[in-house]
Amino acid sequence: MSVKTPEAKPVHKIVELVGSSPTSWEDAARAAVETAAKTMRDLRIAEVTRLDMKIEEGKVVAYRARVTMSFKDND
Amino acid sequence: MSVKTPEAKPVHKIVELVGSSPTSWEDAARAAVETAAKTMRDLRIAEVTRLDMKIEEGKVVAYRARVTMSFKDND
Amino acid sequence: MSVKTPEAKPVHKIVELVGSSPTSWEDAARAAVETAAKTMRDLRIAEVTRLDMKIEEGKVVAYRARVTMSFKDND
Amino acid sequence: MSVKTPEAKPVHKIVELVGSSPTSWEDAARAAVETAAKTMRDLRIAEVTRLDMKIEEGKVVAYRARVTMSFKDND
Amino acid sequence: MSVKTPEAKPVHKIVELVGSSPTSWEDAARAAVETAAKTMRDLRIAEVTRLDMKIEEGKVVAYRARVTMSFKDND
Amino acid sequence: MSVKTPEAKPVHKIVELVGSSPTSWEDAARAAVETAAKTMRDLRIAEVTRLDMKIEEGKVVAYRARVTMSFKDND
Amino acid sequence: MSVKTPEAKPVHKIVELVGSSPTSWEDAARAAVETAAKTMRDLRIAEVTRLDMKIEEGKVVAYRARVTMSFKDND
Amino acid sequence: MSVKTPEAKPVHKIVELVGSSPTSWEDAARAAVETAAKTMRDLRIAEVTRLDMKIEEGKVVAYRARVTMSFKDND
Amino acid sequence: MSVKTPEAKPVHKIVELVGSSPTSWEDAARAAVETAAKTMRDLRIAEVTRLDMKIEEGKVVAYRARVTMSFKDND
Amino acid sequence: MSVKTPEAKPVHKIVELVGSSPTSWEDAARAAVETAAKTMRDLRIAEVTRLDMKIEEGKVVAYRARVTMSFKDND
Amino acid sequence: MSVKTPEAKPVHKIVELVGSSPTSWEDAARAAVETAAKTMRDLRIAEVTRLDMKIEEGKVVAYRARVTMSFKDND
Amino acid sequence: MSVKTPEAKPVHKIVELVGSSPTSWEDAARAAVETAAKTMRDLRIAEVTRLDMKIEEGKVVAYRARVTMSFKDND
Repeated sequence: MSVKTPEAKPVHKIVELVGSSPTSWEDAARAAVETAAKTMRDLRIAEVTRLDMKIEEGKVVAYRARVTMSFKDND
Repeated sequence: MSVKTPEAKPVHKIVELVGSSPTSWEDAARAAVETAAKTMRDLRIAEVTRLDMKIEEGKVVAYRARVTMSFKDND
Repeated sequence: MSVKTPEAKPVHKIVELVGSSPTSWEDAARAAVETAAKTMRDLRIAEVTRLDMKIEEGKVVAYRARVTMSFKDND
Repeated sequence: MSVKTPEAKPVHKIVELVGSSPTSWEDAARAAVETAAKTMRDLRIAEVTRLDMKIEEGKVVAYRARVTMSFKDND
Repeated sequence: MSVKTPEAKPVHKIVELVGSSPTSWEDAARAAVETAAKTMRDLRIAEVTRLDMKIEEGKVVAYRARVTMSFKDND
Repeated sequence: MSVKTPEAKPVHKIVELVGSSPTSWEDAARAAVETAAKTMRDLRIAEVTRLDMKIEEGKVVAYRARVTMSFKDND
Repeated sequence: MSVKTPEAKPVHKIVELVGSSPTSWEDAARAAVETAAKTMRDLRIAEVTRLDMKIEEGKVVAYRARVTMSFKDND
Repeated sequence: MSVKTPEAKPVHKIVELVGSSPTSWEDAARAAVETAAKTMRDLRIAEVTRLDMKIEEGKVVAYRARVTMSFKDND
Repeated sequence: MSVKTPEAKPVHKIVELVGSSPTSWEDAARAAVETAAKTMRDLRIAEVTRLDMKIEEGKVVAYRARVTMSFKDND
Repeated sequence: MSVKTPEAKPVHKIVELVGSSPTSWEDAARAAVETAAKTMRDLRIAEVTRLDMKIEEGKVVAYRARVTMSFKDND
Repeated sequence: MSVKTPEAKPVHKIVELVGSSPTSWEDAARAAVETAAKTMRDLRIAEVTRLDMKIEEGKVVAYRARVTMSFKDND
Repeated sequence: MSVKTPEAKPVHKIVELVGSSPTSWEDAARAAVETAAKTMRDLRIAEVTRLDMKIEEGKVVAYRARVTMSFKDND
């Protein structure tokens, strides 16, 4: 069937968050997932796309994990 | 200042929509932008990342534009 | 089951045409699709892979769209 | 001279076939070329773009050659 | 024949402009070509290298086309 | 503020020249810069993108430097 | 010395496993290594090639590590 | 269902062998497949990823085929 | 102002260390940062560019993190 | 020890030949190797970098192999 | 032997400097090397990774060479 | 016309030399060209593909130029 009037549908959504924790990357990444889950339904997989550390005066003060979630959006 | 407890902040959001129109890519792309604008504030630029056509019985029945909007998310 | 004698089957066919119109890329692309449809059955999608303009004496004399159709060939 | 009405011309055609033979890649590739030649004129060069083998119960039962022919289409 | 004194000749020039129109990408691109033509002779082809839209308050206010012209410079 | 009529502005210009000298790449490159400076204002940086030599009868007869200048064009 | 009859020798083997743990990526990766070690001798290094999380109802239920081991195979 | 204890499963295995024959690449590749088949079940496809020749005193003494088999491993 | 005599200034410095720990990648990475901090001032961010494990007799004996620090050097 | 006067040494030589045979790629490649061997000593390995076929009137009239030999040159 | 406590060792260091001279790239590059040598021991090779020129009023006022030194750091 | 017996013809030859001089890259590159010219006829262009310096005790002791000559070989 053909399209009659202009219309649009979402096809892809990518969201990235950076989580941060003073003790571990697992905590940092979990914080990122839980923040994302507040506004998005149906998250299944969250990939870690960068791990780094924040340093102050020669000491690690935060482990940070960049977390990427990619999915179809039918809202 | 150092981070004390796990926390997370969004850093990047990419949204793609495919708009469709029987007459022009401008109409198709505009439909994509207006659909995105219903749920997102502060859109400034929308890039066209693919143009194609839907064909039925040898005729073009829809011009389609894939539109990508990328921005910081501070919601 | 194993193959007994030499034989061959088509696996992929890609066709590109350049359509041209004095007024719009939609007309140019539609001309490309309709030309292709004369000799090919079952076209469903045609992607635009290049847009350009032909210029004469500082004026645009043609909008041109390169259109690519890719599909399985079982003729 | 400028273009006056929408028109289109083919610019590129790529065809891929997979030939198969129980004895050699030469036979497999030749089968692919001869199959293509039934519907296309003026083939000059056919490039091999993949060689593989079909295996059954630990034995090679077919040598297969993917053959790509690329040319201008002025039909 | 060999070169006797230092000398130089231009070999390549690439110019990009962004055209903008409230109604269509064709108008936007044509504006880019006509602006370029004021200072350059012998333009033959102008390629579209980016299409986007400027958005205000959720509406498309401008269709924009980035146009690239590349040529030998013998001025 | 939105755009009302079609308009265009230059965004990028890349110019390449090849300078040539019988004695050094410095002379060759300087010749390229000075040639470019005759028609362009506000050159700040010129990058060398290729060095080669012209050879005749087994001897180097010219050192050549391809020089690329890239800048915003607001003429 | 030349080869007289057809013969073959292994040259490279790459194995990937995904380990999974409810508490940490270290546990997940260690599980992957220990599983691989059951059938392979002489593992020396295991590289992490992907970290992700499995999510259920907005919570992280598993930390997963993809582990890649690459080595010469002389069995 | 969520994961309760650390566990791991294989996801990918890639094996490469080089077969060698004094007379043809078909013999060389077949030797590689038959060697691999001694320890692996369910091989279906083997791709040729390099063809070369061993040379001694200006003569070809062996035709060699590097063969790559990639598959899921559920052992 | 122009340069009168030969002179040089540092523009970029990249340092990589591999930290190692029997228990976690966090400990391994922190060891790398603290080692780097002994001789470098003003470290702010340290990125993890590789995680792997050292294996002995089928067991993980060390978690290792390659850490990269990149910065301007004005010493 | 330091270098006192200008001097030069070869570091790399790559030679490509295309062999051709009416019957097989092995014959084609062997012809390429034997041609190269007339003027080069110490060839050890010759890699096949392209296989194609020459076609006349829909028939394969030649199997062709492009063969690349790369080596240090200390002549 | 296995690692017992967290520890770290440097594995790679890359330093880049830009040298500048009014007369030649050789002088510019030599200045970069000599500046680097003040604080680093055991430099053996310095690669040129960019040559450019600083321009004022259409004249070359400095030849600049970006020099990269990469080495193992065992301090 | 078709090919009747196996035959081969050279299609490409690439030669690289590294020239070295205590004073300049021009001298280093010229030495490379003159060395190549002793055994090759018809050199026309020689491209510089790497410039570096040899360092001893913190001083530049040689400027080195890697020079690449690529051409058809019809010997």
